[in-house]
Amino acid sequence: MAYLKLVGKDEALRRWFDALAFDYSKSEEVDVADAYGRILAKPVLADRSLPSYYASSVDGIAVRSDTTAFATESRPVRLHRGVDFVWLNTGQEIPEEFDAVIMVEDVEWIDEDSVEIRSPVSPGSNVRMVGEDVVVGDLLFPAYYLLDAVSVSLLVANGIKSVCVLKKPVVSFIPTGDEIVERTGELKPGQSYESNSFILKGLVEQWGGSFFRYKRILPDNPEEITKALKEVMESSDVVVIGAGSSAGKKDFTADVIESLGELLVHGLRLRPSKPTLLGVVGEKPVVGLPGYPFAALVSAELFLKPLIYKLLHRPLPRENVVSAKMVKRVISPMGVEEYLRVMMGKVDGEWVALPLPRGSSLLSPSVKQDGVLVIPMEIIEYKPFDTVNVVLKRDTSELENTLLCVGSHDIVLDLIDATMREKFPGYRMVSASVGSLGGIFSLMRGGSHIGGVHLLDTETGEYNVSYVNRYLPEDEVMLIDFLYRLQGIMVQKGNPKGIKGIGDLVRDDVRFVNRQKGSGTRVLLDYKLSSMGISPSEIRGYDDEEFTHIGVAIRVASGRADAGLGILSAANALGLDFIPVGEEKYDLLTLRRFVELPQMKVLFDVIDSGEFKQKVNSLGGYRWARS
Amino acid sequence: MAYLKLVGKDEALRRWFDALAFDYSKSEEVDVADAYGRILAKPVLADRSLPSYYASSVDGIAVRSDTTAFATESRPVRLHRGVDFVWLNTGQEIPEEFDAVIMVEDVEWIDEDSVEIRSPVSPGSNVRMVGEDVVVGDLLFPAYYLLDAVSVSLLVANGIKSVCVLKKPVVSFIPTGDEIVERTGELKPGQSYESNSFILKGLVEQWGGSFFRYKRILPDNPEEITKALKEVMESSDVVVIGAGSSAGKKDFTADVIESLGELLVHGLRLRPSKPTLLGVVGEKPVVGLPGYPFAALVSAELFLKPLIYKLLHRPLPRENVVSAKMVKRVISPMGVEEYLRVMMGKVDGEWVALPLPRGSSLLSPSVKQDGVLVIPMEIIEYKPFDTVNVVLKRDTSELENTLLCVGSHDIVLDLIDATMREKFPGYRMVSASVGSLGGIFSLMRGGSHIGGVHLLDTETGEYNVSYVNRYLPEDEVMLIDFLYRLQGIMVQKGNPKGIKGIGDLVRDDVRFVNRQKGSGTRVLLDYKLSSMGISPSEIRGYDDEEFTHIGVAIRVASGRADAGLGILSAANALGLDFIPVGEEKYDLLTLRRFVELPQMKVLFDVIDSGEFKQKVNSLGGYRWARS
Repeated sequence: MAYLKLVGKDEALRRWFDALAFDYSKSEEVDVADAYGRILAKPVLADRSLPSYYASSVDGIAVRSDTTAFATESRPVRLHRGVDFVWLNTGQEIPEEFDAVIMVEDVEWIDEDSVEIRSPVSPGSNVRMVGEDVVVGDLLFPAYYLLDAVSVSLLVANGIKSVCVLKKPVVSFIPTGDEIVERTGELKPGQSYESNSFILKGLVEQWGGSFFRYKRILPDNPEEITKALKEVMESSDVVVIGAGSSAGKKDFTADVIESLGELLVHGLRLRPSKPTLLGVVGEKPVVGLPGYPFAALVSAELFLKPLIYKLLHRPLPRENVVSAKMVKRVISPMGVEEYLRVMMGKVDGEWVALPLPRGSSLLSPSVKQDGVLVIPMEIIEYKPFDTVNVVLKRDTSELENTLLCVGSHDIVLDLIDATMREKFPGYRMVSASVGSLGGIFSLMRGGSHIGGVHLLDTETGEYNVSYVNRYLPEDEVMLIDFLYRLQGIMVQKGNPKGIKGIGDLVRDDVRFVNRQKGSGTRVLLDYKLSSMGISPSEIRGYDDEEFTHIGVAIRVASGRADAGLGILSAANALGLDFIPVGEEKYDLLTLRRFVELPQMKVLFDVIDSGEFKQKVNSLGGYRWARS
Repeated sequence: MAYLKLVGKDEALRRWFDALAFDYSKSEEVDVADAYGRILAKPVLADRSLPSYYASSVDGIAVRSDTTAFATESRPVRLHRGVDFVWLNTGQEIPEEFDAVIMVEDVEWIDEDSVEIRSPVSPGSNVRMVGEDVVVGDLLFPAYYLLDAVSVSLLVANGIKSVCVLKKPVVSFIPTGDEIVERTGELKPGQSYESNSFILKGLVEQWGGSFFRYKRILPDNPEEITKALKEVMESSDVVVIGAGSSAGKKDFTADVIESLGELLVHGLRLRPSKPTLLGVVGEKPVVGLPGYPFAALVSAELFLKPLIYKLLHRPLPRENVVSAKMVKRVISPMGVEEYLRVMMGKVDGEWVALPLPRGSSLLSPSVKQDGVLVIPMEIIEYKPFDTVNVVLKRDTSELENTLLCVGSHDIVLDLIDATMREKFPGYRMVSASVGSLGGIFSLMRGGSHIGGVHLLDTETGEYNVSYVNRYLPEDEVMLIDFLYRLQGIMVQKGNPKGIKGIGDLVRDDVRFVNRQKGSGTRVLLDYKLSSMGISPSEIRGYDDEEFTHIGVAIRVASGRADAGLGILSAANALGLDFIPVGEEKYDLLTLRRFVELPQMKVLFDVIDSGEFKQKVNSLGGYRWARS
């Protein structure tokens, strides 16, 4: 697909909005009881005053104030029921002949029908006046007011039965793609479930719109797309045509929009949402939404959200942008704005951002994201620990109890996170995989609270201690004995290449996949190779790097490599065979000043719990480094 | 009602929670499509890997990478369709025999069935690997995860049809009160509509609970309340018994709870929520909610919200507390914590709080509130411009475009606010009534952007200019010519006391109600009295003060006073008769440095618009001070 001319997101939105006519006359009358979250189309005036009658604000007796004028401590005034007073409970109406209420505490009962009063009361005492809260004819709410729980209650108290509200903007979504099928059916090879409508539905309803998905998924066929577009146009305020897995050769949406109306934006200078189309058909806005879920999500937030807010005459909530330290190097193409999903936490009161995997086809990083790093067009690189601006996507109070873990990755870290979340609401651990050495540097630079390390001192054969002492002052650091874990060679199920050990990695028919420099696994491999007298250059694929155990396992499972070094639990997760190479010590490294943090205490509770240990044991390949 | 022993809110919550057993086993299976906003009861593991097949990430041709190994710019390799390559669109599955995809841009077509390649491609190029996003068996979500739009979409993409979620906690509300009636009926004198359930419903659903209102409103009768409580207990997770207009003598809820279970908290050391009851009946929490709406709202936020969050295993979102300048003096009783509703805005980047009327029976201040000033038990006074802590109840981005107006009040200010909101989404004006002089002081102290002033220089007969110049440097200030308005004596409809002018205010049978010191209306009255040679002491009620024109009008309309000085529009609003006394000049005062603020520009747009002028004219009693 050839993009006509890429534009930036602001220019795109401006061009689109300029071509649209915004009309706020679409309204409907709804019962007040159904008006929660709706936007008033007209001002509402008070039907009556509140309170609507003179009421006692206490339990006591209603009196005429002038009858009490001469009461004193020594010369009480006696009053008689029915003539001089009546009893009133709080909230009861005051009969017209009385003008004040005396609290029960200030009344002396002589008998059932007479009381004595020892001080005068002024007119209006303990009386809730008519109109104290609302005066009849008052403006209760201006037009375009968003009705919340309290406003609905005020309408009810005022006796208003129904209100005129703006109609919810209707967003119609037409999914397309030959390979896309309904979630209710079975998947054939090469097919995917239609899932983007579920993102859109949730967001559109949250933004105040009404979501409608077209009755079926259309094949990549311009005639069918044209027909469906015409069909839903009448009942929609905006039509969204969703692409399949991506905007490939067979994406006919642009042609369809051009043939029926005007295509205003044909591609964005934005990663991941480049294949976004914005147009107008018959005065109505039409969007061609990218098929990849991250791209669809970003395009929806950039264009559908402002559209719905504008249709509802509401200001867009401002984004919460914070400065953060980025723990990993990030490179980004020149001339394209990029949205990078990140996880967030705070170290020593400063925000830290951990990048998530990029691909716009990846949905799970969108689930995990706490924020988005917007990389401007002119930036091509952030170095580790550079300061970046992040748009937060969660409330800060959800993020502040985060334990930041940067270092060598192990599947056990995911278990720690899951257990923290389950047992300690509000707590969690997020982690970035930068290898053991990277973890040490991150602690030094305030990028994390903790890190997994498994660094073999090839001179002493000892793990971790010598490395840690080389970089961090002994009195500041704390090394937590954690696990011994089995490292080994992961090979495809059944070991088709008959690999028996490290020695076989030099074979011509074996494609190896390595871990990145600085990772403990890489150090272990190099140690083994050197002790066996093998040169790295003898291994095909030695320079082919992955960043995680699972990354290596996926490469092997997919047949894109024959062997890789990693832990047993990763091999188990992907059903790979595993040839043990040796046990290594995987410890947790932290700084003493973090030990009293609440999230750290939660971590200790988790890793000391029997339930957690049992879960780790069931993964296979682990042995506890402490009792 | 005698309170057994008042306790603070934290102690009350602790006592209540300690007596409750929290059980997270109540779960239900729901279709994934209905799972938005629900909390998982169990972890969810991936049913399949995503992608579940090897797919092309571009439009291009699938090849075996080894066939391209020797391709160079000068010696291209020729490939044949069906044998060496197949065409793939983005997202299509890669046949097993191929291991890489070459982008369409890098392919030279020789004819329909053969292409030439000028550089080698490595295995895995442009291939979306199986499990890149999710690996089968991965933990998709831990237990107690809140499912949002993206998470639902990930579940759908993963082929998961239903999930096990925590049941929504059921909050049953039983309204009581002899004087309370259903909103659908007609009000008789002395009755009010049942409106508290509408606050609760909105909040409970927002917090993730399910709300149920008992089928009818119960009279103040312990047997009926007991019966209803037993009836709803089984199907509820918490039962809330709502009092009538307040907790008066006939409030039997405490007795009912004590007879069926245990009453743990009987009254709070907290204004407005003193009459709150917390108890346990048959292991279930029971709340006796105050009848006044502000008290009900605060009690619901203090007790029902934490309960629902805890039942859903979620952390309470942290409150957003900010420091603010309080523009008015606030006094508060010793030994009682008080919640005071405030409106908020920013002047020169600093938060400013404007207090709203207090009464716990008043609902409209809860609609207007932007935040709550929590006054600790030991504080009895804040002086004007003291720094206070405010818990924000709205997002800061809703508050930052606020124009703060502090000074003399006029109904026209409400019109300005309503017009700003209607015409300029996101903008508004909030105002506090402190009189004209108070408005000048507030501008001097950074408490406002603008203020209404109508101060008569009794020596020159001129309005405003001399006062302003006395307090504010001429080069910093800007006085905006605004309105002439008619002041007069407001009397009851038909003028029953036959009042003809200021001279009649000295009559023995006339009860006057005055405006506060420093208000322009008070200055006007004093000027008139002195010019007529009348001493204030001759007027009955001269020391009886109200703070607004409407306040005075309500006093007169209610018969609690016979006469008061004020503007025609206030008299009109309450249907009072009006005896003109004179015209005065009501101007808007601001500082030059505020003139370029966006909210100030919006103000100028509003007051210059024909529509606004027409609305003001229709109020009656106004004349424009500029063309």
